[in-house]
Amino acid sequence: MIKVAIMGYGVVGSGVYEILRKNEKSITKKTGGKTLEVKYILDLRDFPDHENPALFTKNFDDIINDTEVSIVVEVMGGLKPAYEYSKAALLAGKNVITSNKELVAEHGTELMAIAKEQNVNYLFEASVGGGIPIISPLSQCLLANEIEEIYGILNGTTNYILTKMVKEGADFADALSEAQRLGYAERNPEADVEGHDARRKIAILASLASGKFVNWKEVPTEGITKITRQDVAFAEKYDAVIKLVGVAKIDPEGQVYIRVSPMVIPRTNQLADVNDVFNAILVKGDSIGDVMFYGRGAGKLPTASAVVADVIDAAKHIHINKLITWKKVDNNFMIDPETVPCRYFVRATNSAVINDFSGAEDLGNENGEWFFITEEMTEKEFKNTLGDRGAFIRVLD
Amino acid sequence: MIKVAIMGYGVVGSGVYEILRKNEKSITKKTGGKTLEVKYILDLRDFPDHENPALFTKNFDDIINDTEVSIVVEVMGGLKPAYEYSKAALLAGKNVITSNKELVAEHGTELMAIAKEQNVNYLFEASVGGGIPIISPLSQCLLANEIEEIYGILNGTTNYILTKMVKEGADFADALSEAQRLGYAERNPEADVEGHDARRKIAILASLASGKFVNWKEVPTEGITKITRQDVAFAEKYDAVIKLVGVAKIDPEGQVYIRVSPMVIPRTNQLADVNDVFNAILVKGDSIGDVMFYGRGAGKLPTASAVVADVIDAAKHIHINKLITWKKVDNNFMIDPETVPCRYFVRATNSAVINDFSGAEDLGNENGEWFFITEEMTEKEFKNTLGDRGAFIRVLD
Repeated sequence: MIKVAIMGYGVVGSGVYEILRKNEKSITKKTGGKTLEVKYILDLRDFPDHENPALFTKNFDDIINDTEVSIVVEVMGGLKPAYEYSKAALLAGKNVITSNKELVAEHGTELMAIAKEQNVNYLFEASVGGGIPIISPLSQCLLANEIEEIYGILNGTTNYILTKMVKEGADFADALSEAQRLGYAERNPEADVEGHDARRKIAILASLASGKFVNWKEVPTEGITKITRQDVAFAEKYDAVIKLVGVAKIDPEGQVYIRVSPMVIPRTNQLADVNDVFNAILVKGDSIGDVMFYGRGAGKLPTASAVVADVIDAAKHIHINKLITWKKVDNNFMIDPETVPCRYFVRATNSAVINDFSGAEDLGNENGEWFFITEEMTEKEFKNTLGDRGAFIRVLD
Repeated sequence: MIKVAIMGYGVVGSGVYEILRKNEKSITKKTGGKTLEVKYILDLRDFPDHENPALFTKNFDDIINDTEVSIVVEVMGGLKPAYEYSKAALLAGKNVITSNKELVAEHGTELMAIAKEQNVNYLFEASVGGGIPIISPLSQCLLANEIEEIYGILNGTTNYILTKMVKEGADFADALSEAQRLGYAERNPEADVEGHDARRKIAILASLASGKFVNWKEVPTEGITKITRQDVAFAEKYDAVIKLVGVAKIDPEGQVYIRVSPMVIPRTNQLADVNDVFNAILVKGDSIGDVMFYGRGAGKLPTASAVVADVIDAAKHIHINKLITWKKVDNNFMIDPETVPCRYFVRATNSAVINDFSGAEDLGNENGEWFFITEEMTEKEFKNTLGDRGAFIRVLD
């Protein structure tokens, strides 16, 4: 019998409880006969109608001082008090499972190191891609590969909005309103639409793939708020769609290029077909080539199922560190993004701009806006040439 | 230092050796500091030009009697002598890693049980989907789910042939010749085009997902040799493509429906875009919904990278069984496929046939062949109605 504490009884926390209860029998089989029992649920709110109100506590000490509890699920979100609680639990020799991408992106390095020292695990499959298995494949199934590139649609909210703009010709504001009405976007949508959520996720993936801590604050990030209906329509003429993409490339010397921004994706690319709230992550390894993972990137049960998978994994490795880790290194290994070549989809303010880009492909014009696609050039060269004569979106090649 | 023996130095075996050498440094990091060293390569052939001819042996006893060897890679293929060797290695307390789907489908139950008794592992990620992580996600990341359905394009050769028929209007014989010319199909293509390869793979996946041994010999299997250019063209009119699909469904009582056959796949389905030699596997879980895994299903380095990932995993769990298993059960849990409802794409020999299928959708006719799609009905009812008046392909809904 393994005792579990759940910290945070919101959407994901209640999903974790539900799955542990519903699939109890099959889960016991999968742990090799160890039953998983929830002993505590930590939440400041009251849940008088819960089937087992005795599980609830408002006091973290109940959990940390209970030596029976060997697995703590942290699904509170945010840094405070999640960081302090997670650290304390690990230092007390308990396994910690989380879906909290903010915490992993900010303090994952330290928490994994403590887990290793304590011979327990800090696992975070649910922090990226919701229910889609990606952390575990990266840190296990693809281990034989040097990972050269990861790119993906990492945020369901923005993908829903952009899908609506592509399929229905909606403009950004209307698509956002609809997403809010359906509960796909928060009342304050900034974390999603400005790319901050995707930024943390790509930083986590890049850290895992490179073995070096990539600070999410150093990820150049652009959101989708400035994408217009016309951008979508002219991208369509090029047989492409616009999506918010997180990209990380790791060169043979271990230098890392990373970015979150909207990208123009030709329809021949598998990512172009990833619509609505779905996520997809493409990994390129030196041996395997391209492999893609696709599924629901958010939602109560998908995310909770990833958490519970980690709980089962921790139960199978109760005092064996799984060696999922990255290190902080001092030297600068980030590639200057201005030096990276790319093609650009341009919305220019006058017809003459295209003449400054040799080999550019003209896509036409509408209402005083001229659209074209450049040849490949560094971002520095591109921006110098364009100046303030237009807006642009990078092309995914 | 962990000593490894590779049995079989064909395409996959040489790829395993190559990856272990090329990525040696990073692999050592990933095992937590244990270096993996190839001590033996077993093959009856001579490789005088190899960089290290001293590794080669023709005598299995060298491996089995060497207590230093703790991981054996079996990439010989076939049942003889792979079965005998794998069993002996496991009984000697060595971990065995394989890409051999025939052996896993035939004797996996016994070999996993021996591994468990011996506290070692019998791992077979590379047996399904080449380099695509699927065995490990199924047996780990998706553990919190009751798996309800798995379906996928599991054979790259047939997918290449069918893609050529769809995209170029080639007929089967020409597409097969081209696949043979490019080395995607064997001189004797039967194992691929008759569906035997896909059959073993879906049996392995169904066994893992249900926890019960599904005998590959009991998987109803149809190949692609009878698909005509006209089938492809009329499916296109329905905005669908034809692919060879393995399907396994597991109902809430644990009853299993399984089949390998060509299917008509509407273009709205993600699988419709999986082309050429790529594979894709879609898994439906009760919590996660649909999740898809996509990549190269075969080839030297993709397959070898999956083998090496298992080698690393075994190195991290050198005397800890990972509890990846299924059991032989005596009672019959297979659903009679004739009772399962489906829609059917029909190529009928006369225009009157459609009248016997109420609600059927007429797709037109050409050269004395009439094409239509039926409403959903059981296979038994459908076959009784159609009789010998045509051929059919199931529709994937």
